[in-house]
Amino acid sequence: MAKRPAGAADLRESCLREALAVIERSGVEALSLREVARGLGVSHQAPYKHFASRDHLLAEVVRRIYDGFARHLDDRPRHDDPYGDLGAIGEAYLAYARAHPLQYRLMFATPLPDPAAHPAMMASARHAFAILNEAIDRVHGRPDAASPAGRAVPLDALYVWATVHGLASIMQASAMRTLALPESIHAAVEPHAMGRLHAAMTAALSSKDLP
Amino acid sequence: MAKRPAGAADLRESCLREALAVIERSGVEALSLREVARGLGVSHQAPYKHFASRDHLLAEVVRRIYDGFARHLDDRPRHDDPYGDLGAIGEAYLAYARAHPLQYRLMFATPLPDPAAHPAMMASARHAFAILNEAIDRVHGRPDAASPAGRAVPLDALYVWATVHGLASIMQASAMRTLALPESIHAAVEPHAMGRLHAAMTAALSSKDLP
Repeated sequence: MAKRPAGAADLRESCLREALAVIERSGVEALSLREVARGLGVSHQAPYKHFASRDHLLAEVVRRIYDGFARHLDDRPRHDDPYGDLGAIGEAYLAYARAHPLQYRLMFATPLPDPAAHPAMMASARHAFAILNEAIDRVHGRPDAASPAGRAVPLDALYVWATVHGLASIMQASAMRTLALPESIHAAVEPHAMGRLHAAMTAALSSKDLP
Repeated sequence: MAKRPAGAADLRESCLREALAVIERSGVEALSLREVARGLGVSHQAPYKHFASRDHLLAEVVRRIYDGFARHLDDRPRHDDPYGDLGAIGEAYLAYARAHPLQYRLMFATPLPDPAAHPAMMASARHAFAILNEAIDRVHGRPDAASPAGRAVPLDALYVWATVHGLASIMQASAMRTLALPESIHAAVEPHAMGRLHAAMTAALSSKDLP
């Protein structure tokens, strides 16, 4: 590996920080290496030393966000009960979305670069999904070789993801404010929906306990 | 009401169409009356004859989208069974999101103008939500005066909205493509999740059938 000139790593990090700032200020459509260079006060060519294109820069921004999100899910309080653990993942997920709305939108509500061209971003996204998939696998219990559990686990992971993603999204959506619901309703939405989600999973899987 | 000069109504409609085109091309952050005027090849002042501000223009774009969305939900196939009707709303909702991704994002995943300042937009959004709320009301059945059903109905409406919104969103999300799931899984996500949602609602409400 060629030795980097002093300060090169700094510029790379600065580009990543500035990219996030551009997205926050003007939306992901406005992101370009030129805009990042302008924001940093460096030459238009400088960011190209570290990123082959705007998509490479965005993919690295998003890869790091997926990694931080996965760490956040991994740091949840642990429960021996699989349903308790699934609930803890849901809580951690919603807490992340509340605390990091920009990062959350970038992961799940933004057109991302072609995953095939950015395998590191793809690997980090899949790692985050695997955390949910494994928790669902434990809820389903030991798979019966004769059952379609191999398909049921990712389908339930996507179902749970859809529910918590929808919940996180509507709580932040302008449409929610437009409805002007009473504060008592607003405060009860998340626990109510998590309870319903729990009911869906237990109802769907309870037949497995039968002989 | 002052008589409008010929062509004024046309310019108003043209502004609304061009606003949507600007949003599709460059994101909602790029929308301005100046940008709309530029796109239409009219003077910078011209759009102000019809819209007091960029937010007034955006609010009218969004109001019309909410109205069209509500009409689409109202046009669903009708079922006498309340659960069947709720399922039909879910199907109609998901079909709208698939057919009109830009309009869908504008309603539910875009920062909107302050609802208090744009009551017509607010009324249209509330009308769309009322369709879901009324369907949930029928699923709950005759409310027991002693029960907290008055609160349970909007909470279940928000829960159902979160699930279908999450489903519509993840099916369109780049993150979904990043997971590169097999096509058989992809095709089964919506029916699977709708089945789980149905299980959640029936499980939660079945105790009401008890004496």
